[in-house]
Amino acid sequence: MSGLFITVEGLEGVGKSTNLAFVEQWLINKGLEVETTREPGGTALAEDIRELLLAKRDEPVSQTCELLMMFAARAQHLSQKINPWLDQGKCVLSDRFTDATYAYQGGGREMDVSIINQLEGIVQNGLQPDFTLLLDAPAEIGLARIQSRGFTDRIEQEKVEFFDRAREGYLARAKAQPNRMHIIDASKTLEQVQTQIDATLTAFFKAREQA
Amino acid sequence: MSGLFITVEGLEGVGKSTNLAFVEQWLINKGLEVETTREPGGTALAEDIRELLLAKRDEPVSQTCELLMMFAARAQHLSQKINPWLDQGKCVLSDRFTDATYAYQGGGREMDVSIINQLEGIVQNGLQPDFTLLLDAPAEIGLARIQSRGFTDRIEQEKVEFFDRAREGYLARAKAQPNRMHIIDASKTLEQVQTQIDATLTAFFKAREQA
Repeated sequence: MSGLFITVEGLEGVGKSTNLAFVEQWLINKGLEVETTREPGGTALAEDIRELLLAKRDEPVSQTCELLMMFAARAQHLSQKINPWLDQGKCVLSDRFTDATYAYQGGGREMDVSIINQLEGIVQNGLQPDFTLLLDAPAEIGLARIQSRGFTDRIEQEKVEFFDRAREGYLARAKAQPNRMHIIDASKTLEQVQTQIDATLTAFFKAREQA
Repeated sequence: MSGLFITVEGLEGVGKSTNLAFVEQWLINKGLEVETTREPGGTALAEDIRELLLAKRDEPVSQTCELLMMFAARAQHLSQKINPWLDQGKCVLSDRFTDATYAYQGGGREMDVSIINQLEGIVQNGLQPDFTLLLDAPAEIGLARIQSRGFTDRIEQEKVEFFDRAREGYLARAKAQPNRMHIIDASKTLEQVQTQIDATLTAFFKAREQA
């Protein structure tokens, strides 16, 4: 039996961690065996790559280098964790996946999307999430939240225009793949956000059980 | 004016360091402004990626992850060092470049060469070395030398069959690109090897000056 691959996407500071925990508990309550993970990361090596990706350094990081490191971490995560879990029939819940690459490197950095497509082909062998929640809010809201944390990583220190483009990248992708990607208005109160998430997950499983 | 890009390739233990220093001195004597570098590596970030690539770890490293990390380091090396040096008209001398990826990942790991081609296209934008010396010797010779050093990295600890395939990968590539890649018999004495290198470099520059 093949498992279920669910991802949660969104900009920094949209409440991803809190809502990921909500989704995880929802899926456990549904009786699923859930493995929760994150990108970039998810294995010791992939977390080491994440550290290189996010570290601030004097040396400018080439966009192509950043993109290839992102997919290198993903290849490792897939081969060591995600694919084996799915083969075991588990429900894999990931804090971000390839939609984030389309948003950040494609939208934010305005890289050629055909290069991202090529790398996706090399690394994923056709695998796509079964269901994706996109926590959407204006970039300013999230940026204000992460700045109040008092530290930012190399990507979080980008200007608001970068995050505006990343948000547009996410929304364009959700519009192109409406059956898989579900937009949640993350500018609402936490209770309202979780009501939307609950309704979306309920509809997804209902459709799946009737299929 | 565009510079000159020279690479030295070969398996572990074939005398690459010694002969790289010989080539460097030869080029300096020729009056060229030489920048000597290495792959994977060549910038602080690319050296950090090299460290991740070569570290032994309990976690198996997926072939695709390894290949993408190699090209990530290369993208950074090209954007921060090699391309700017070439734009400045310098002579760039690199201890390994993409031929090593074809040899190790294509030959040694038997990965699909069309994937390496795709990544080369994404990262190099058509750039190829102008001149490559392939220091060739049976894998056993080099392996005996590196084992006498007393330590091996993650790739050096592969079995002899891996290095046999990598050597075949190098030789096949040299056969396909005879104008660029020059095979040096590295099983000879150092003096004989350097006589071959001198003759090959002399012929290359003679042809170049006549062109």
